[in-house]
Amino acid sequence: MRALRKLRPEAGFVLEEVPIPEIGPTDVLIHVEKAGVCGTDQHIYSWDKWAQARVKPPLVIGHEFMGTVAAVGSAVRSVAAGERVSAEGHIADLTCVLCRTGQAHICERVEIIGVDRDGAFADYIAMPEYNVWKLDPAIPDEFAAIFDPLGNAVHTVMAAGVSTKSVVITGVGSIGLMAIPVARAAGAASVYAIDVNPAKLELAKRLGADETFDARTPGLVDEIKRRTNGDGVDVLLEMSGSGSAIDSGLQMVRNGGTAALLGIPSDSININLAERIIFKGLTVLGINGRKMFETWYQTQALVKSGRVDLRPIITHVLPFEQFDRAFELMRSGEAAKIVLDLKGDIAS
Amino acid sequence: MRALRKLRPEAGFVLEEVPIPEIGPTDVLIHVEKAGVCGTDQHIYSWDKWAQARVKPPLVIGHEFMGTVAAVGSAVRSVAAGERVSAEGHIADLTCVLCRTGQAHICERVEIIGVDRDGAFADYIAMPEYNVWKLDPAIPDEFAAIFDPLGNAVHTVMAAGVSTKSVVITGVGSIGLMAIPVARAAGAASVYAIDVNPAKLELAKRLGADETFDARTPGLVDEIKRRTNGDGVDVLLEMSGSGSAIDSGLQMVRNGGTAALLGIPSDSININLAERIIFKGLTVLGINGRKMFETWYQTQALVKSGRVDLRPIITHVLPFEQFDRAFELMRSGEAAKIVLDLKGDIAS
Amino acid sequence: MRALRKLRPEAGFVLEEVPIPEIGPTDVLIHVEKAGVCGTDQHIYSWDKWAQARVKPPLVIGHEFMGTVAAVGSAVRSVAAGERVSAEGHIADLTCVLCRTGQAHICERVEIIGVDRDGAFADYIAMPEYNVWKLDPAIPDEFAAIFDPLGNAVHTVMAAGVSTKSVVITGVGSIGLMAIPVARAAGAASVYAIDVNPAKLELAKRLGADETFDARTPGLVDEIKRRTNGDGVDVLLEMSGSGSAIDSGLQMVRNGGTAALLGIPSDSININLAERIIFKGLTVLGINGRKMFETWYQTQALVKSGRVDLRPIITHVLPFEQFDRAFELMRSGEAAKIVLDLKGDIAS
Amino acid sequence: MRALRKLRPEAGFVLEEVPIPEIGPTDVLIHVEKAGVCGTDQHIYSWDKWAQARVKPPLVIGHEFMGTVAAVGSAVRSVAAGERVSAEGHIADLTCVLCRTGQAHICERVEIIGVDRDGAFADYIAMPEYNVWKLDPAIPDEFAAIFDPLGNAVHTVMAAGVSTKSVVITGVGSIGLMAIPVARAAGAASVYAIDVNPAKLELAKRLGADETFDARTPGLVDEIKRRTNGDGVDVLLEMSGSGSAIDSGLQMVRNGGTAALLGIPSDSININLAERIIFKGLTVLGINGRKMFETWYQTQALVKSGRVDLRPIITHVLPFEQFDRAFELMRSGEAAKIVLDLKGDIAS
Repeated sequence: MRALRKLRPEAGFVLEEVPIPEIGPTDVLIHVEKAGVCGTDQHIYSWDKWAQARVKPPLVIGHEFMGTVAAVGSAVRSVAAGERVSAEGHIADLTCVLCRTGQAHICERVEIIGVDRDGAFADYIAMPEYNVWKLDPAIPDEFAAIFDPLGNAVHTVMAAGVSTKSVVITGVGSIGLMAIPVARAAGAASVYAIDVNPAKLELAKRLGADETFDARTPGLVDEIKRRTNGDGVDVLLEMSGSGSAIDSGLQMVRNGGTAALLGIPSDSININLAERIIFKGLTVLGINGRKMFETWYQTQALVKSGRVDLRPIITHVLPFEQFDRAFELMRSGEAAKIVLDLKGDIAS
Repeated sequence: MRALRKLRPEAGFVLEEVPIPEIGPTDVLIHVEKAGVCGTDQHIYSWDKWAQARVKPPLVIGHEFMGTVAAVGSAVRSVAAGERVSAEGHIADLTCVLCRTGQAHICERVEIIGVDRDGAFADYIAMPEYNVWKLDPAIPDEFAAIFDPLGNAVHTVMAAGVSTKSVVITGVGSIGLMAIPVARAAGAASVYAIDVNPAKLELAKRLGADETFDARTPGLVDEIKRRTNGDGVDVLLEMSGSGSAIDSGLQMVRNGGTAALLGIPSDSININLAERIIFKGLTVLGINGRKMFETWYQTQALVKSGRVDLRPIITHVLPFEQFDRAFELMRSGEAAKIVLDLKGDIAS
Repeated sequence: MRALRKLRPEAGFVLEEVPIPEIGPTDVLIHVEKAGVCGTDQHIYSWDKWAQARVKPPLVIGHEFMGTVAAVGSAVRSVAAGERVSAEGHIADLTCVLCRTGQAHICERVEIIGVDRDGAFADYIAMPEYNVWKLDPAIPDEFAAIFDPLGNAVHTVMAAGVSTKSVVITGVGSIGLMAIPVARAAGAASVYAIDVNPAKLELAKRLGADETFDARTPGLVDEIKRRTNGDGVDVLLEMSGSGSAIDSGLQMVRNGGTAALLGIPSDSININLAERIIFKGLTVLGINGRKMFETWYQTQALVKSGRVDLRPIITHVLPFEQFDRAFELMRSGEAAKIVLDLKGDIAS
Repeated sequence: MRALRKLRPEAGFVLEEVPIPEIGPTDVLIHVEKAGVCGTDQHIYSWDKWAQARVKPPLVIGHEFMGTVAAVGSAVRSVAAGERVSAEGHIADLTCVLCRTGQAHICERVEIIGVDRDGAFADYIAMPEYNVWKLDPAIPDEFAAIFDPLGNAVHTVMAAGVSTKSVVITGVGSIGLMAIPVARAAGAASVYAIDVNPAKLELAKRLGADETFDARTPGLVDEIKRRTNGDGVDVLLEMSGSGSAIDSGLQMVRNGGTAALLGIPSDSININLAERIIFKGLTVLGINGRKMFETWYQTQALVKSGRVDLRPIITHVLPFEQFDRAFELMRSGEAAKIVLDLKGDIAS
């Protein structure tokens, strides 16, 4: 089968033929049809510091995908060949206290496909039955292919709790953009989006943000407070990982409000804990992955309700072979979300 | 001033001249402009068993209203003459453990205006400063006049938690009808409305219900389950007070779901607690009044967001003098919500 | 191996030799050492209406136990032969929305060992790996054998939330008795126990109840209110299943309080929902089984902390062969909790 | 009356005669009997950077106290002369969204007695009726005098939720010490205390800590993990304000755990948000003051239950005149908690 692999500790990927993965008794073999390209893939492609520390080549990349079940192991009961599926890419040990109490998404021994073990940019991927998610017929393929990042947005929004609340989103990369219709559909009364990229802010507006702001606007904290009766917003969804966005975002939240942190700062940052968190009585939530499978059910409900339309975000659907172009579009900032089509151009 | 009063223990009200109420140092005198007519008023008008047991004539009726502050007591700081206001009609003692821990709405010594003390169907009403709610300029008068029942709907919806959830509403009288746009705006993924009145079900559809059902449909529990993957809905909002609606509503909820009970059964009812609640692991919430003032802030946020439009529910706005017609419209089931206009026809 | 079986649809059990159960790739074979006798076993023994409707002979009885792993299936990873274990007796399908969102204990397709499939009153039992609970060395065998009912008590207490709260327990059968030290260790500020059996009430006192009351005491609701500043208790733990206990228990709870229902009424009961639940703004929780495995971790933490001592409750440890005497002791009300010892008297 | 005042912007306090404060219609005049000395008072005494920035002399110091109502304003209804009281020292505006939704403790316009307005180190203090807390006869005077810092401990413990959980407390100054019996009484399964002061750690042990550790112990994070099955504790109660304690404390918390921050860092600190909070899925809670009055009821319940004994913490009860000795004992670290007795030595 074809697989897009990081072969050596250097920039770039190689598309080559490799054997179809074998499956054990509790595994499911999935024929990949569509796969989303993530910023994480970009990090591995360009072989940055984080990738060098984490990734061990050779490795098949990719963790966002949907496809059709090709075969199942002898002990698999919940899914059958021919069924249309996506899958949770965090493979947890399922035996620790976290896995046994509904927190498998933060299992200490979690392995991520396409990062720690072979991933989804290939014609086939083997997944544990536990991780497979059967797709509702009402979910379009392109949306199903990006349930992973959409799930990040849903997890963040639902952990913060936005029903009837005012919300600031700092950072509207693809997950931040998804968080806009998700927050609105989940009940947010108002959504303000902040970024430095005018094209992304324009897109944020189209996706339902009430107002958008350039992060470098002087007096932006006060601007936000003015729109919220001087109090500040109820909820911050931090999706940039930028130290200055975190600092100003925390200032925008009202006393007693909630800040959900999804964006990953690349280094330690300096925080005035007393002024930003303690005196204000804030609740700060670290968000990682997606709850298995509460987030997946919520994501499905939101998409099926018709209130989360991802089409404006999926700026490109490219044939698998054009992966280099995909990474170039990502690098240039031209694309919001790119989906690779693995099925359209092969004789399957 | 004019006041609509229950004068004697018998059916009917009398509109007559009475002195303007006096206010103490912590009270606010409000010039009433618009007032909503509630089923409770109808009970007192027709002098049914409940009214006979609870109401002590003579009494000014009415508890849903908005108006303008006419005067304030010497110790009042938070509101001033000329300001546009509504008010919470549950007057709590503010000294008990419930009032001191954010649960004043269920204070054991609560008094309700228009039921236990003089109410709002009058040119002026005196209210404690604590109960007065300053109106945002963006809230239209008619909506402001019915923040009390709208608050019941919001309290029920927010207590249950509907974000990304499937919801059944049993009973679409005026509060049940309001609960439909409220639930949608608060994030419900789907809303099913059930009643026996075809006109109300028609209105429910216009207000955003995904589907509506006659409560007498055979196999209705199974119908609802079919729409929710065989599991049942996540949330029941019970707004009928009917024993059979409660019983079938509880059957429609999935295991582990939530039932919020607002409708008041007139008698004890028979429940199979084991099958309906215990084995299913349900959470059942008794809902009373509105949280002071969390519900009011939520209600304001929902209306200001433009996502809760009550206009289809307010079927009639009548001059104050036509109160008898209002109660006749209520009795006949012709009206959903009636608002009395006290200002339009007086020389103030 | 020996197994205690319901052979025919009639009263009594038969201890006889049967083959050791076979295990599949994901199963664990456990050598049973100690097993608790439950009221449910008593229902099956006496072959009452409930048992006749639910149980299909022949069947090995028993669902509370501990023992040692004798063998594991080929795909089992988390447990090995020789390890000391107990197990969750609710076998869920692990594929439905409830199982996939942390609510396997209320899976609609749950099967209970000793009720719906062969149970633990036998030298060996086969359990799915998912259900096996590895025992901490600090947990004594007798306590480990009754983690199932202890878990019911812990689930009820933790769902209600008792930290700094006042608590009434209605019904101090063995689970109600366990709930007393559990509630105290979990932070209850005061615990009142109510029953009709003086011996059980005496035991309740020894286990840490602040006060105990005969359920038939006139004016008992007022007695409880007097002890809680006239307000009523914060939390009701209903463990009797009696209609009158439920009604008076709900009256004892303060407005805004919580009632957790574990006791199973044998029939429908009559409730004044308006007065008991709705006007009071109560939260009523149906409790079933134990959360997998949050309850088990909580139970372990409580027992390890040394603050939950079950020794006064385990009134008898009997050799397996004396099962008839066990059921006679249960029937007569002489015993609180009986543990059968399967290991002490066999050549294993 | 006597009052201990900061007269000028310099170190030290002056005890002098000043007029008894006047009260308005909604105020209560309290005859102070006993008052606790807090680290905040010490900051004001020594006139450090924080005090210079915040405090405007002249000012009566002191915010922890109990006494007897001497007089009430004309509109006061809930308390009467002669009643024994303490009071919440955070005076909120009671009109903002926070005050109106149960979060008055983090009102943006809060004024603190003894810091922003005249305080409790005086024979009399005037307090708004809203802030007065009637004392249960079962609460000893010395405990009542320090309900303010005890309330900080209770607020932190209850916000984190410790029932059946493992807990680390970093920093056992007087509030950290109080948090030990509070956490145990509230249901913590295990409590580990960390500090650099051996005398305080010794006291921590006496107050019920399972184990105590010097914060400078090499490998301390691993030590704590070893005691919690390698996972880390469920809950961190941070009461030191030290950057290194916060950093190592966060490392000690298991994935998915909770960190409640009460200690106030004097400067910004550097945090690796990705590793300490985001990837771990932590919940971080900023804690300020006490919830009005949920925390007060919880505190009362804990003390009345007899499970929170503060006597080992109150190392000194001194006559009011010996205030200089009190601050010297504070400065030297000899004292844990000092209570000043204003009544014992005056002709009242």
